[in-house]
Amino acid sequence: MTQFADLTLREIRRDLHRHPEAGWKEFRTTALVAEELDALGFDLSLGSDAVNVAERLGVPADDEVAGARERARREGAPEEYLEYMDDVTGLVAQKRYGDGPTVGVRVDIDALERSEAMDDDHRPAREGFASTHPGEMHACGHDGHTAIGVGIARAFDEEGFDGTLKLFFQPAEEGGRGGKPMSETDHLDDVDVLFALHLGLDEETGTVVGGYDRPLSNAKIDVTFEGEPAHAGGAPQEGRNALQAMSTAIQNLYAIPRHADGMTRINVGRVTADNAQNVICEEARMRVEVRGGDADLNDYMMGKAERVLDGAAGMHDVDYETSLYGMTTTFENDQSVVDTVMAAAETVDGVDQVCGRSPFGGSEDASFLIRKVQENGGVATYVGVGASNPAGHHTAYFDVEEESLDIAVDVVTESIRRVAAES
Amino acid sequence: MTQFADLTLREIRRDLHRHPEAGWKEFRTTALVAEELDALGFDLSLGSDAVNVAERLGVPADDEVAGARERARREGAPEEYLEYMDDVTGLVAQKRYGDGPTVGVRVDIDALERSEAMDDDHRPAREGFASTHPGEMHACGHDGHTAIGVGIARAFDEEGFDGTLKLFFQPAEEGGRGGKPMSETDHLDDVDVLFALHLGLDEETGTVVGGYDRPLSNAKIDVTFEGEPAHAGGAPQEGRNALQAMSTAIQNLYAIPRHADGMTRINVGRVTADNAQNVICEEARMRVEVRGGDADLNDYMMGKAERVLDGAAGMHDVDYETSLYGMTTTFENDQSVVDTVMAAAETVDGVDQVCGRSPFGGSEDASFLIRKVQENGGVATYVGVGASNPAGHHTAYFDVEEESLDIAVDVVTESIRRVAAES
Amino acid sequence: MTQFADLTLREIRRDLHRHPEAGWKEFRTTALVAEELDALGFDLSLGSDAVNVAERLGVPADDEVAGARERARREGAPEEYLEYMDDVTGLVAQKRYGDGPTVGVRVDIDALERSEAMDDDHRPAREGFASTHPGEMHACGHDGHTAIGVGIARAFDEEGFDGTLKLFFQPAEEGGRGGKPMSETDHLDDVDVLFALHLGLDEETGTVVGGYDRPLSNAKIDVTFEGEPAHAGGAPQEGRNALQAMSTAIQNLYAIPRHADGMTRINVGRVTADNAQNVICEEARMRVEVRGGDADLNDYMMGKAERVLDGAAGMHDVDYETSLYGMTTTFENDQSVVDTVMAAAETVDGVDQVCGRSPFGGSEDASFLIRKVQENGGVATYVGVGASNPAGHHTAYFDVEEESLDIAVDVVTESIRRVAAES
Amino acid sequence: MTQFADLTLREIRRDLHRHPEAGWKEFRTTALVAEELDALGFDLSLGSDAVNVAERLGVPADDEVAGARERARREGAPEEYLEYMDDVTGLVAQKRYGDGPTVGVRVDIDALERSEAMDDDHRPAREGFASTHPGEMHACGHDGHTAIGVGIARAFDEEGFDGTLKLFFQPAEEGGRGGKPMSETDHLDDVDVLFALHLGLDEETGTVVGGYDRPLSNAKIDVTFEGEPAHAGGAPQEGRNALQAMSTAIQNLYAIPRHADGMTRINVGRVTADNAQNVICEEARMRVEVRGGDADLNDYMMGKAERVLDGAAGMHDVDYETSLYGMTTTFENDQSVVDTVMAAAETVDGVDQVCGRSPFGGSEDASFLIRKVQENGGVATYVGVGASNPAGHHTAYFDVEEESLDIAVDVVTESIRRVAAES
Repeated sequence: MTQFADLTLREIRRDLHRHPEAGWKEFRTTALVAEELDALGFDLSLGSDAVNVAERLGVPADDEVAGARERARREGAPEEYLEYMDDVTGLVAQKRYGDGPTVGVRVDIDALERSEAMDDDHRPAREGFASTHPGEMHACGHDGHTAIGVGIARAFDEEGFDGTLKLFFQPAEEGGRGGKPMSETDHLDDVDVLFALHLGLDEETGTVVGGYDRPLSNAKIDVTFEGEPAHAGGAPQEGRNALQAMSTAIQNLYAIPRHADGMTRINVGRVTADNAQNVICEEARMRVEVRGGDADLNDYMMGKAERVLDGAAGMHDVDYETSLYGMTTTFENDQSVVDTVMAAAETVDGVDQVCGRSPFGGSEDASFLIRKVQENGGVATYVGVGASNPAGHHTAYFDVEEESLDIAVDVVTESIRRVAAES
Repeated sequence: MTQFADLTLREIRRDLHRHPEAGWKEFRTTALVAEELDALGFDLSLGSDAVNVAERLGVPADDEVAGARERARREGAPEEYLEYMDDVTGLVAQKRYGDGPTVGVRVDIDALERSEAMDDDHRPAREGFASTHPGEMHACGHDGHTAIGVGIARAFDEEGFDGTLKLFFQPAEEGGRGGKPMSETDHLDDVDVLFALHLGLDEETGTVVGGYDRPLSNAKIDVTFEGEPAHAGGAPQEGRNALQAMSTAIQNLYAIPRHADGMTRINVGRVTADNAQNVICEEARMRVEVRGGDADLNDYMMGKAERVLDGAAGMHDVDYETSLYGMTTTFENDQSVVDTVMAAAETVDGVDQVCGRSPFGGSEDASFLIRKVQENGGVATYVGVGASNPAGHHTAYFDVEEESLDIAVDVVTESIRRVAAES
Repeated sequence: MTQFADLTLREIRRDLHRHPEAGWKEFRTTALVAEELDALGFDLSLGSDAVNVAERLGVPADDEVAGARERARREGAPEEYLEYMDDVTGLVAQKRYGDGPTVGVRVDIDALERSEAMDDDHRPAREGFASTHPGEMHACGHDGHTAIGVGIARAFDEEGFDGTLKLFFQPAEEGGRGGKPMSETDHLDDVDVLFALHLGLDEETGTVVGGYDRPLSNAKIDVTFEGEPAHAGGAPQEGRNALQAMSTAIQNLYAIPRHADGMTRINVGRVTADNAQNVICEEARMRVEVRGGDADLNDYMMGKAERVLDGAAGMHDVDYETSLYGMTTTFENDQSVVDTVMAAAETVDGVDQVCGRSPFGGSEDASFLIRKVQENGGVATYVGVGASNPAGHHTAYFDVEEESLDIAVDVVTESIRRVAAES
Repeated sequence: MTQFADLTLREIRRDLHRHPEAGWKEFRTTALVAEELDALGFDLSLGSDAVNVAERLGVPADDEVAGARERARREGAPEEYLEYMDDVTGLVAQKRYGDGPTVGVRVDIDALERSEAMDDDHRPAREGFASTHPGEMHACGHDGHTAIGVGIARAFDEEGFDGTLKLFFQPAEEGGRGGKPMSETDHLDDVDVLFALHLGLDEETGTVVGGYDRPLSNAKIDVTFEGEPAHAGGAPQEGRNALQAMSTAIQNLYAIPRHADGMTRINVGRVTADNAQNVICEEARMRVEVRGGDADLNDYMMGKAERVLDGAAGMHDVDYETSLYGMTTTFENDQSVVDTVMAAAETVDGVDQVCGRSPFGGSEDASFLIRKVQENGGVATYVGVGASNPAGHHTAYFDVEEESLDIAVDVVTESIRRVAAES
């Protein structure tokens, strides 16, 4: 008897909402889903079997990860799956129902690093399922996505379909840290059709978008400048000033030339230089994010940014290191599978508006999974399932209308049945 | 019966060393010294009677101060004096022994914000009197200075001298935060001769310096830039970027023109801009320190720095605020009282070398008390009492040889007797 | 008998090509055209009657203008018209042929400030009509435009059309300096239909574009920073460094945030700071150009740029002045008149391709005249007349195929006849 | 019969004042002096025999040098010596009078690049010997120095002294361009005692300073950044912006850390970036000057400056080149020869005040000659000869009181006689 066994999708979503886990900390989420899918007869790949560990981006410090795993244990994560995972989160679950095509569904499972509103204007607070983890919140609907993944598995439990189902429960989507390492495994090699999905995105409950695509590419790097301290009064000439290097870099990063081929962006955040005021700064850190209308423009920005960092460090005789914190790329849906989704959606209860392809305003690391499938000759789409929101994504008052959960399950399962029937 | 009553100066120093209190948090120190001097018959002015509250610099946040006061209570600070102090530290104690001159002695009582070495190479650790307050340490000898202040009071207890003794137990010397507010009271108005003193300063035990003077002037300001956040991808034009303003300021602060009249310095530390990488930075903070070979050069630097801050903020359409964190000025000793100290020191047991005036390499906010006395027609000197150190001031292994405590008491009391006798 | 009387359009164009006159120096050009149109019975408004003198942008220094006027006299400009012009170039010429609509034609008459290729690969050099004015060249076809303006006047000389013709010979198009002052007169108030035109623009002879529109907005300002010199060795603190201010400004100009609504650009050129290396820089100058996909984006850039200049100057305690060197805005053609041109062009000998509206890649200050007409309820289009070029606009080898001159005259006159007929 | 033969020193000085020749253009000056010394029986080394051509610094462009040589010819420079010089200026002249020591005298001969005041308040203008070369002026007294050199040769013509006289007429002292190449020959190898001298330096006529020394070290470099042009509107991403690189460099050059060991300075001048405002800047140039209280401090500044240039160029992907424009180093006089000068000066008519060694506030490239002599075991001093000035050195109204010329000759010749007598 699994912990999720008697829970509805709504109840699962609320349980996850109370226990949000940020990127690479999704131990409880992964373990509970694994337990449920195990019971439903899926073959499981967890942790380092689900993601390419060497390719993981933006992994928190070891003690933070260990703390999150310990917290998961305290909060009921089944020990068996925690052990399998070791210190890596994520799950790929597979079940063969028939000879037909292999169909993948990708859902993301991580929470955001932000606190949740706790007043009665906010339904999760009012109804007792707000986050119990300060500084973490499901403010982007991934709690719902996870529940939908479970719902799809349940939906096929009796009748199945003529093919194989692969469910990708991807960690660390926020920041674009988990998509790439999940794509760099062989799990996607045999996927013929991939569905990714997202709730909300400013569409009302009842609306289905056959495919969002052409998201921005982005990349985020953490930069550390390492200089040499010195007494700012007694021997300023002996310092190698990491802060001067960083300030010069910031000035010039914002001044990277605009590109005539399309949209580019750059920003700097999380800046710290923690020296005392009378010591020449020894270490300074920042996170830099670039974006581009496509992957080339993103690469252009990153190339220029690296040159700026190198010059600024050299100028002040300091060392620097960069590490990729996260990245996304762009993708385009396949019209055929968009059409399938649209046709399927028309038949689903609760759907009152069906739209075609639409540009995705932000960034998404499902891009890596989608491109991998397409490179192997498969097709994919990124489905939007409307869910009326009281407040915008990533804000403290974000919430999803839970009717959208069943709609999402129905749209995807009906699409999968049609894919299987058509092939 | 006071807590200090049965303790030697060495024991008092060690008790204080175990309970270091950083600037504006010296509740236990102040209260225990007050209790002792009360018992010795001194009139006490504590807290807002000892310092000009409105002129205090670099005061920590209210909850930090309240926490320090509560800690002091837990660690034995007598309630009566804590109540008198309310939330302000510092003490001026006065006792009249005769009709002669009023002689002041200023000692500073605060600890540094740094952790102490805890291994056996470090005597305080080895002998069990290392700091029990993580992040605070008497790494500049002010524990000894405080004990010396008590020792001087004790020394006159039987015979007194022909005059009045005023003891200034000054808070928050580190950063130059307490000298100015203590000088801006009327306690110094009637002081004819002021002695300030410091242990160590790279001189061996047995050496006495009649007067260190001409320290550097400095000033430290905390700067906050306040802009407007915006999504760095979706609407960069709507942001007002506090980080760009700060970076521009940093670049230009370091580029303030050198001054032909003498030494100038500038440095920036404690830099933070805590926005997420995809948000245009709304708030950025830094601490700026300027120095000058004299007060004019220091003012030159601060004037230029303010202009830079103003321009940088205006350039990026952000607001900014500065608050003075601390400051020191320069001073010159009076040769007459330097001579008195030198002559007195020659007579003191344990003194084997007596030096004249010497330049003080760093900064000192005793400067404000000294200047106040001199403005009123009094004289002053800043006495150095050698104390062999195993490691430099402000480092984790700093310690003072405790023989220096009695030497200091003897040098100052003998100097006071001579002053009284000569007048 | 006028000087142009016996010349074909091709000969007029070649005469002008040999005597190129840069912006606000078009004395000979204006005077010879005036003489010719006078003979054809046009009413003339010259110089300050043709442009709003107070609104002129980027006017050269008085002695340069005077020199150009003197050169024009030496090179045959009729004295009568030079006198009328005084020191201002430009011409509006009007003739009433019938009661119908007032139709305007705008041509620009100035040359570029650049030298012409003088080798035999370049037809003007080979055939003896290359520029005789070093540093000035008709490298954008305005010599042809001027000839076309004369050709249109000649074309109506016998039969006229049912309406009034107004010819606008606009000075100083290069840099966007003459369009605004010509538009700020009352000459355009009664214009019902305005044709502007341009040769070349990468289209072959025989192609006609009914209307180029949506050019970029731009603005150019000259900036002078004025500080205070000082000896860089002996008294650096006494300087107010105009160069530091300018460098800070340049850094931050390039770092003006990108705008999510569309294309923005910024660039800095013509930078000088002419101090000796041992003197703190007293004066520094630069020219700043901003562009935007529309007028709002251009204004956004200029607003930000001004803020940067102000902050940079304030930061280094220097004064600064800006003067507008030139500007253009954007416009959209009226489809009705584009259609008229396209229909007319189909009937013209030598035309083998007729295109509709097309985006104009660069900037054009005909925009001000077009918008003025449209504000008054009139319609306008900016016609492109192909003219095979051996080399790009603004290069030393630029030339136009002269068959295009008659094509242009025919397209415009036929369009005017249709406008008159339709109204 | 030489052109100078009948002229007094005052007349020679005035002739030179009317025909000032800036650094490396001193053809007329060199030739006329050569002619005169030839007649007096000196052995002459001119041009590339006088200076190490490969080591020359800050040499003007070939056509400028050729123009100056042609001007010299027009203005009476004897052809014979012009031919010997070819295109290099400078002269070393030697004459043996006896077996005693070889004594050198170094005078500098170049003018400044600045215009002279032409109003009647200025004696050279009033009395008709102001500069006839616009943009060149003897504003530092080198016209007088040259005349003094001739005067010393004349003084020994009858009686000689027991030794050998070597006169160094050094070109291009302004900017520190000629001292190093003159020192890097073998002419100084046998010099036992070297006298350099300077008129004025804020001392009144009648004052003699036995030796100015410890001048500042400095170095000046010309920097060119070479990038790649691109249309600022159409393809900003294709440019490599030399101006951004230069601006970043300037910002960071001024921000080179102060040095605790002594005075440092930096300044930037002669800045140009001549691109049009709509073209990304391809080439940008500047001159950078650093100074230090001693050669190490100067080297510190130059080392840091080079690092800044390198980083700034790399940051913007542009190339850069530096060339040394000029340099000076520091030196100390030998007390023995200072004493000799002081003793000699006491005997000279017109001298009313004799001073000892004094710090030289500015920079001097006689330093290279002095150090070379000292390295070879010789001794040297840099003598100051007061000459009341109506206005400061390097200003438009600078002039020297001509009584100082004979005083200088007498002081040096008497010193030489004493040197010879003592050895």
